[in-house]
Amino acid sequence: MAPILLLLFLVSGATADSDPVQDFCVPDPGPNPVQLTHLSTYPCKNPSNASADDFVFSGIRFPGNFSNQTGFAGISVNPTQFPGLNTLGMSFARADFEQGGVNPPHYHPRATETALVLTGRVYSGFVDSAGRIYAKVLEKGEVMVFPRGLVHFQMNVGESRATIFGSFNSQNPGLVRIPGTVFGSGIKDAVLEKAFGLSPEELEKLEKRFRPS
Amino acid sequence: MAPILLLLFLVSGATADSDPVQDFCVPDPGPNPVQLTHLSTYPCKNPSNASADDFVFSGIRFPGNFSNQTGFAGISVNPTQFPGLNTLGMSFARADFEQGGVNPPHYHPRATETALVLTGRVYSGFVDSAGRIYAKVLEKGEVMVFPRGLVHFQMNVGESRATIFGSFNSQNPGLVRIPGTVFGSGIKDAVLEKAFGLSPEELEKLEKRFRPS
Amino acid sequence: MAPILLLLFLVSGATADSDPVQDFCVPDPGPNPVQLTHLSTYPCKNPSNASADDFVFSGIRFPGNFSNQTGFAGISVNPTQFPGLNTLGMSFARADFEQGGVNPPHYHPRATETALVLTGRVYSGFVDSAGRIYAKVLEKGEVMVFPRGLVHFQMNVGESRATIFGSFNSQNPGLVRIPGTVFGSGIKDAVLEKAFGLSPEELEKLEKRFRPS
Amino acid sequence: MAPILLLLFLVSGATADSDPVQDFCVPDPGPNPVQLTHLSTYPCKNPSNASADDFVFSGIRFPGNFSNQTGFAGISVNPTQFPGLNTLGMSFARADFEQGGVNPPHYHPRATETALVLTGRVYSGFVDSAGRIYAKVLEKGEVMVFPRGLVHFQMNVGESRATIFGSFNSQNPGLVRIPGTVFGSGIKDAVLEKAFGLSPEELEKLEKRFRPS
Amino acid sequence: MAPILLLLFLVSGATADSDPVQDFCVPDPGPNPVQLTHLSTYPCKNPSNASADDFVFSGIRFPGNFSNQTGFAGISVNPTQFPGLNTLGMSFARADFEQGGVNPPHYHPRATETALVLTGRVYSGFVDSAGRIYAKVLEKGEVMVFPRGLVHFQMNVGESRATIFGSFNSQNPGLVRIPGTVFGSGIKDAVLEKAFGLSPEELEKLEKRFRPS
Amino acid sequence: MAPILLLLFLVSGATADSDPVQDFCVPDPGPNPVQLTHLSTYPCKNPSNASADDFVFSGIRFPGNFSNQTGFAGISVNPTQFPGLNTLGMSFARADFEQGGVNPPHYHPRATETALVLTGRVYSGFVDSAGRIYAKVLEKGEVMVFPRGLVHFQMNVGESRATIFGSFNSQNPGLVRIPGTVFGSGIKDAVLEKAFGLSPEELEKLEKRFRPS
Repeated sequence: MAPILLLLFLVSGATADSDPVQDFCVPDPGPNPVQLTHLSTYPCKNPSNASADDFVFSGIRFPGNFSNQTGFAGISVNPTQFPGLNTLGMSFARADFEQGGVNPPHYHPRATETALVLTGRVYSGFVDSAGRIYAKVLEKGEVMVFPRGLVHFQMNVGESRATIFGSFNSQNPGLVRIPGTVFGSGIKDAVLEKAFGLSPEELEKLEKRFRPS
Repeated sequence: MAPILLLLFLVSGATADSDPVQDFCVPDPGPNPVQLTHLSTYPCKNPSNASADDFVFSGIRFPGNFSNQTGFAGISVNPTQFPGLNTLGMSFARADFEQGGVNPPHYHPRATETALVLTGRVYSGFVDSAGRIYAKVLEKGEVMVFPRGLVHFQMNVGESRATIFGSFNSQNPGLVRIPGTVFGSGIKDAVLEKAFGLSPEELEKLEKRFRPS
Repeated sequence: MAPILLLLFLVSGATADSDPVQDFCVPDPGPNPVQLTHLSTYPCKNPSNASADDFVFSGIRFPGNFSNQTGFAGISVNPTQFPGLNTLGMSFARADFEQGGVNPPHYHPRATETALVLTGRVYSGFVDSAGRIYAKVLEKGEVMVFPRGLVHFQMNVGESRATIFGSFNSQNPGLVRIPGTVFGSGIKDAVLEKAFGLSPEELEKLEKRFRPS
Repeated sequence: MAPILLLLFLVSGATADSDPVQDFCVPDPGPNPVQLTHLSTYPCKNPSNASADDFVFSGIRFPGNFSNQTGFAGISVNPTQFPGLNTLGMSFARADFEQGGVNPPHYHPRATETALVLTGRVYSGFVDSAGRIYAKVLEKGEVMVFPRGLVHFQMNVGESRATIFGSFNSQNPGLVRIPGTVFGSGIKDAVLEKAFGLSPEELEKLEKRFRPS
Repeated sequence: MAPILLLLFLVSGATADSDPVQDFCVPDPGPNPVQLTHLSTYPCKNPSNASADDFVFSGIRFPGNFSNQTGFAGISVNPTQFPGLNTLGMSFARADFEQGGVNPPHYHPRATETALVLTGRVYSGFVDSAGRIYAKVLEKGEVMVFPRGLVHFQMNVGESRATIFGSFNSQNPGLVRIPGTVFGSGIKDAVLEKAFGLSPEELEKLEKRFRPS
Repeated sequence: MAPILLLLFLVSGATADSDPVQDFCVPDPGPNPVQLTHLSTYPCKNPSNASADDFVFSGIRFPGNFSNQTGFAGISVNPTQFPGLNTLGMSFARADFEQGGVNPPHYHPRATETALVLTGRVYSGFVDSAGRIYAKVLEKGEVMVFPRGLVHFQMNVGESRATIFGSFNSQNPGLVRIPGTVFGSGIKDAVLEKAFGLSPEELEKLEKRFRPS
């Protein structure tokens, strides 16, 4: 019976962000939930069994784990963490920065982001598809918008920790981190040497840093 | 020339929230901006003339004006206030509550909302289209999601002011306040008396409160 | 086996109204259909087994049951009643009014409605998100459009029964009835008293009427 | 000034059917309206100047003009006839049939249709993209759904006039009539002879009937 | 167990072309794949088990089978043939023409097509919904666009074989061939005689050619 | 008059890729066209004035200009080059590679791409948002799909020139070239040094190469 159950639980869920055909659809893992690395796709819970707790998330009251290399801690929240978001076309994230901490250049292929500075002073910006940069230092209470699919980045330039709350107009915006994607994924060296004008030694140094261990 | 200019400046802008065909489109009022009560629709600014300031909003660092009746202050931010949001499918709001302050039942016809409690304790909930309620008290740092188009409400149940940051997956979610829409818009008395089971006197009291002065 | 089957039959179906990827998808309950309170989500029937009857609906030739309180009878038709509508982005409804009958203020969170008067004279209108009302008496053969998500209402002001045919641009537009949603769902009294300026006694009267029995 | 005005008035309007960013947008021709053969694209009327009449259509209370060849009379209503529909994602049509009258095979490239029989008995059907037909005789009060983009047709098989009300989930569904499109548009004879297996004489007879005079 | 498995494997898959909520979703038939005449709807393969081969298609390096009647060979590629396309909103086709070969009038209900001439000279065109034709002879390396849902056709007017590569903005654009749809699907003779002005004998000749054998 | 004309011509055009409300909309620059750096937004040409030439593009019969650094030549075709694509949700590109030529890592924020190898042997791949690479060598006639928004790249690994035809499901997919976006746009050095683990000298070498001259 095991293989049947496994397939069974992988099925359904939202396949698009726009124009749902019901009020909401809280995924229901049923009596035999499975562990999945991919976004799980359970059927909708019967609304009579849903409660307020299905629509409230408490997991970003505190920062995530800081990276030694960047001084950055990020928590992304999508239906895997907060099932109530399923089919609703939104998700969010918390980002914390040590002094000088950096959120490296990245982009979200499926969402615009609005980023509210909760505490601190944050140099923040994005680059459009013509290569123009739009960047400045944000103070507490300011909001910057990063258009869907464009590369953006942040750096704590204040004298204490900084915290940002990011909102997305997709239930699963995706996150493509440029450094690891380019230098840590295994693209042939010949491509990267020519694309970036790097010597084999220079490239190896970058690949070593971003290759998954 | 005046009537020509007026029409000219009303034209264009985004007409839908999904799948834009450019990175962004900051509306450009041109050399002769006009005052509009309706959402203005200017052409896109040439991106070469855009700057980081077009994508940063500083107007919600402080609360809006509190209502005496409800102890509530709300600031809605869409492209009229923050032109850089145009075509990007997102907007946001700040809500402040005095002790016991109430954000009356309302809904956003064009967006889901995620509401983050920045300070305070807030009783918060929504009602689905089958009439089921999902409500509970949120603490600082918790997030509740209100599905698109469903009636929701909030009340400060803590012992100090409370503040909420709401995000929307539409550049102009719309805001329909139930009390004023139903009792203050001029719907024929006979309709409302029969719909709510109210006497003419009871209805008149409600209409008096919500009729625009 | 029972719990497996139950989950099995809840899965799949349309999750959005726009741009289907097949001609149609008539849900197929299979050999062991289940009763569901929520919109059921069966797999698509093999088109070779579909017939004209799957795409024809005969259930609105006669009025539904009239409510004593409002003199109104409504029949909403979505894929639960008419499976052939699934994935096609449309649904419809029949509304009948006794003399003086009222369709109380309500809205459809996921659809625009066009309402055709089949017989009678009907006072009909909606309120926009700025609180402006658009209402007038419609004669037989006239059509009014209610924009997506806006509150609207109707009252038979003629001297005989009236009938309306409503069409929607969603397979499941949703129906939020204002009176029951606000006064019958269990929102805390303190919220409603402050929001509507009602005394506890006035509120209790309204809640009594709309509380589900 | 004339050419400038002409261009001016062609601009703006809705470009897509889904997810508008305002309650509605009644096109405003301004003080100098122009006659257009193409769907006109005016700016939105200031909502303060809109009234209930903008959202009510009275032009389908009576049949359109009957064709001698087919015994059919159709009235299509989109924002050109009923400006209030603009951006709302819906439109409608009235079709009348003399005894034996036929609505020839046609399709709507941008909308699903639900067709309600108001009077009469109508043989009605569609063909899916695999060539399967779904057709039957509808009685008064029955509704058939024609999925977006599929060829459909109707014939009055009753003993009196028949009338149908069609609704569409696009503000401008488009109407492609097969006979005129294929035989009356000027496609090279060699293409049509080979595609349909027709002799030059047989083709000429068909082209003569459908060629615009 | 057989009926359970069968249903199980029919479930899930993409239901719309726009705004996916994951990078991709390669359908996973699991250990017990079933043969389906309808577009199959399997769950997503775990991305860890996906490989480059899932995203590369090798089946259009050679022409398909030529029809004797039209001298035309077409290969349509959608997720049934190339599962990696699932949820990605695109598909494609190869068309080959003998000298004088014809791709009969047809349309794709769910996609715009861009057609690149790989070899040969091809008379190519479409008809809009007002009956206007847009047609000309294309040379190697030229691209013509056929707007979504409009009737189009092609004929090899060069002195050797011709080949075209068509791309679509839907994972399953659909293909409605006019001749077979109208004359080979079983629409009542009375409808077609009146619609096309054909005698019973003329109609029978056409139906004989296109009736499925 | 000049400033009026200038604004006039910037207005309207498509703002989204999905569900147009007319057959097509060829932008009409009118009698006084202006040169624009941004995607121009003219009103729709009257269809009576459109011709087959509006829907045929002849500009990719030959390669574009090769870059000395990468041995790559790309021609992107959107409505700016081929106005007939406007509102149709598709566009395309031609890419040519000298021996060893490289199309550096890049992505299209608004479209999936299908890439057909017209001549040559091309190492081709993409990286998903979890950092997994999907890459292999494609032969003539093979097609690879690059999901919307994911980083991809190509390299000619054959012994002669190679050519690729790419199709997109957006009229303006956007093109974000990783090297120039990250190292040539002016992101603060401190951000890039920390994000990539580069010394100031190493970073300066990269910036020098990609800084616009």
